[in-house]
Amino acid sequence: MKKKVNAAIIIIGNEILSGRTQDKNVFFISNWLNSRCGISVKEVRVIPDDENTIIKNTLLLSKKFNYVFTTGGIGPTHDDITAKSISKAFKKKYEYNKEAYNILEKYYGKKKFNDGRKKMAKMPSGARLIYNPASAAPGFIIKNVLSLPGVPSILNSMIENCKRYLTKGAKTHSKTLNLYTVESNIAKKLGEIQKKYKKFVDIGSYPFFRLGKIGVAIVMRSTSLVKLNSVNSALLKLVKQKKIKILKI
Amino acid sequence: MKKKVNAAIIIIGNEILSGRTQDKNVFFISNWLNSRCGISVKEVRVIPDDENTIIKNTLLLSKKFNYVFTTGGIGPTHDDITAKSISKAFKKKYEYNKEAYNILEKYYGKKKFNDGRKKMAKMPSGARLIYNPASAAPGFIIKNVLSLPGVPSILNSMIENCKRYLTKGAKTHSKTLNLYTVESNIAKKLGEIQKKYKKFVDIGSYPFFRLGKIGVAIVMRSTSLVKLNSVNSALLKLVKQKKIKILKI
Repeated sequence: MKKKVNAAIIIIGNEILSGRTQDKNVFFISNWLNSRCGISVKEVRVIPDDENTIIKNTLLLSKKFNYVFTTGGIGPTHDDITAKSISKAFKKKYEYNKEAYNILEKYYGKKKFNDGRKKMAKMPSGARLIYNPASAAPGFIIKNVLSLPGVPSILNSMIENCKRYLTKGAKTHSKTLNLYTVESNIAKKLGEIQKKYKKFVDIGSYPFFRLGKIGVAIVMRSTSLVKLNSVNSALLKLVKQKKIKILKI
Repeated sequence: MKKKVNAAIIIIGNEILSGRTQDKNVFFISNWLNSRCGISVKEVRVIPDDENTIIKNTLLLSKKFNYVFTTGGIGPTHDDITAKSISKAFKKKYEYNKEAYNILEKYYGKKKFNDGRKKMAKMPSGARLIYNPASAAPGFIIKNVLSLPGVPSILNSMIENCKRYLTKGAKTHSKTLNLYTVESNIAKKLGEIQKKYKKFVDIGSYPFFRLGKIGVAIVMRSTSLVKLNSVNSALLKLVKQKKIKILKI
């Protein structure tokens, strides 16, 4: 049986904290890790473009979780300090990665390969590359930390190239029941079912509003398909008892 | 002169970590705090529905920042454990708030005021209410921690009711220049300008793609309008020198 593998995400970016930009990377990465790699994200932090803050959070989370993904701060400008900060965190030299340098020089052409662009080839000594099919500038992995860019379309294009560096975990299965009822109508019984299966199945309850009606989505998640089905059966029994209509989508 | 006031946000929710739901609350709260209250969000954490994790993060961030906003976990079901966890964090009794109880009883009517709904009136002893015009169940503030629901439409309806509990900070002004150029073309000079105004103005550089053209948005942020204008002038000079086209929106 595969073991559980977890990860954390660090979003590095003043633009997210200031409310200028809506983050989309947490949603994308979590979803991908879960569905494609059996890896559960256990914590996310959004932090400013500040060297000490990046160093502290990287070290802390890389000790606590199997993998850490960072997004943002690996471009050519002064506020792109992720690679330098992670080098310092792991006491590695911050230097040109030869392969990255060659990729970028080829992409831009020798004449247009200016200092800003060269900066994107600098990373912690010993880092391995995460290739970038969208705009050439690679991300990198050092120890268990994978650094990706902040622009969602570029990040999305690179995500499959992270796979080679990841150990797959036990797949988390999920089932959802969309019920035309209110949470409080089923809260008590739902709590009892959760208590019984506490060790094996996570049950979440999320209100929704659809076509003018309110309802609640019950989401079950487990690495055991057998336990998941048991919870599902228990819930269907409850639904029948309470004469609740199920919304099929 | 008003002093700087900061805040952190804790998003409590397995559904965000699993990639099932796209968080929208960070964007909304940060934006509102910034523009309406002069409060800067300095850190965001997304954590699971787990009592110890909620307690630890609440205590840590409430010491570190002027305010902490939590979202999620204050509904009627078993996975709604925010109020209980925060009570424990601050060593307060977790009990019925009389005012909240009355509001909810009136809203649902005595007959339909079941245990699940009553649970939404339980909070840390001594908490004050954040009224909810959308669906009655109030949020609460205890010490410097404000707890709001996770459903964005409900949270949005409540946000103005947080204002009475917040001390306004110095307003952060911002200017944006949208330039039809690439980051690396201006990176060096931009870095020099940032260095010069490091103490007063934050300059961020964000690539964009619009109408098939690539560009970069330079965002300046400062509590000093004078310094902001100086940076803006320096940038306009650079733009002129480099013959860069400005995109007016």
